[in-house]
Amino acid sequence: MKDIKPRSACPLSYGLDFIGDKWSLLIIRDMALNNKSTYGEFLNSEEQIATNILADRLGMLEAYGFVTKQVAADKKSKFLYRLTEKGISLVPVIIEIGLWGSVYNPPGLNTQLLSALQQDKEGTIRRIQENLRRHE
Amino acid sequence: MKDIKPRSACPLSYGLDFIGDKWSLLIIRDMALNNKSTYGEFLNSEEQIATNILADRLGMLEAYGFVTKQVAADKKSKFLYRLTEKGISLVPVIIEIGLWGSVYNPPGLNTQLLSALQQDKEGTIRRIQENLRRHE
Repeated sequence: MKDIKPRSACPLSYGLDFIGDKWSLLIIRDMALNNKSTYGEFLNSEEQIATNILADRLGMLEAYGFVTKQVAADKKSKFLYRLTEKGISLVPVIIEIGLWGSVYNPPGLNTQLLSALQQDKEGTIRRIQENLRRHE
Repeated sequence: MKDIKPRSACPLSYGLDFIGDKWSLLIIRDMALNNKSTYGEFLNSEEQIATNILADRLGMLEAYGFVTKQVAADKKSKFLYRLTEKGISLVPVIIEIGLWGSVYNPPGLNTQLLSALQQDKEGTIRRIQENLRRHE
C-alpha cells in the first residue's frame, strides 16, 4: 500500500486521492448497504474483486480510518470490518453515484431504496447512517 | 483506451466503471466549476495530470458521451471540450465528494459555494447545471 499524498487543496481531488478507484467504494457499499463485514463476504461480491486488490484496499481503508478491523467473537481467526464515522460519512457519495447509475443503467438501485430516496433523500441517507452507527 | 464492460448490475459499480479513477472527475470539475474547456487548460490544473492520462480520459469521456469535442471558432487547431447532459448529470457526484473533502480536509470548497450548498444544496446544484446547459 502506498502512502497517499494530497495532489492539491481541492476537496474533490482530496476525496479522489482515497476513493478514486473502481473498488474502495464497492467495499464500503458492501458494509453500508449489504450488511457484509468479512473478507470472504467482500470477495464473494458480484464484481469479483481480486484477492490482492481487496487486501490492498482494506489495508488503505483501515490505515486511513474508514474502517476498523476486529477479531470476531465467535472465531479467533475471523476478522470483522466495520465502518467508522469517516466511512459512514461516505454514504451520501455512494448514494449519489448509485442514483446516477440508476438513470444511465436502469433499473439501478432496488425499488424500495430508490423510492425512499426520491421521496426524501436527506432523511433516507440519515436513516441509513444512523442504522450503521447502531452497529458500531 | 479500453472498452468498458459493466462488472455487475449495481448502479454504484456501473458509475465507478466510468468515473472510478483519480482523474476523470477532476477533468469534469474543470469544465463544470472552473470554466475550462481546452486540453491545455486541463493540463495546467494544480494536480498536474500526465499528458497520456489526460488524453486517455478525454478519449473515454468523449467515447461514452460525457463530453463533446469541437473545433474552436477562433482557431482550427484548437479543440473545445464541453459537458453533455450526461456529463452535467455528474455535478451532484462532484459536489458530494467535494462536501466530504471539505469536512475531512478543510477549508475545502470555496466559501461562497460551500455556504450556498449549506443553505440550499439541491437548488445550488440545479443552478450550476442550468448555467452549464446555457453554454452547451
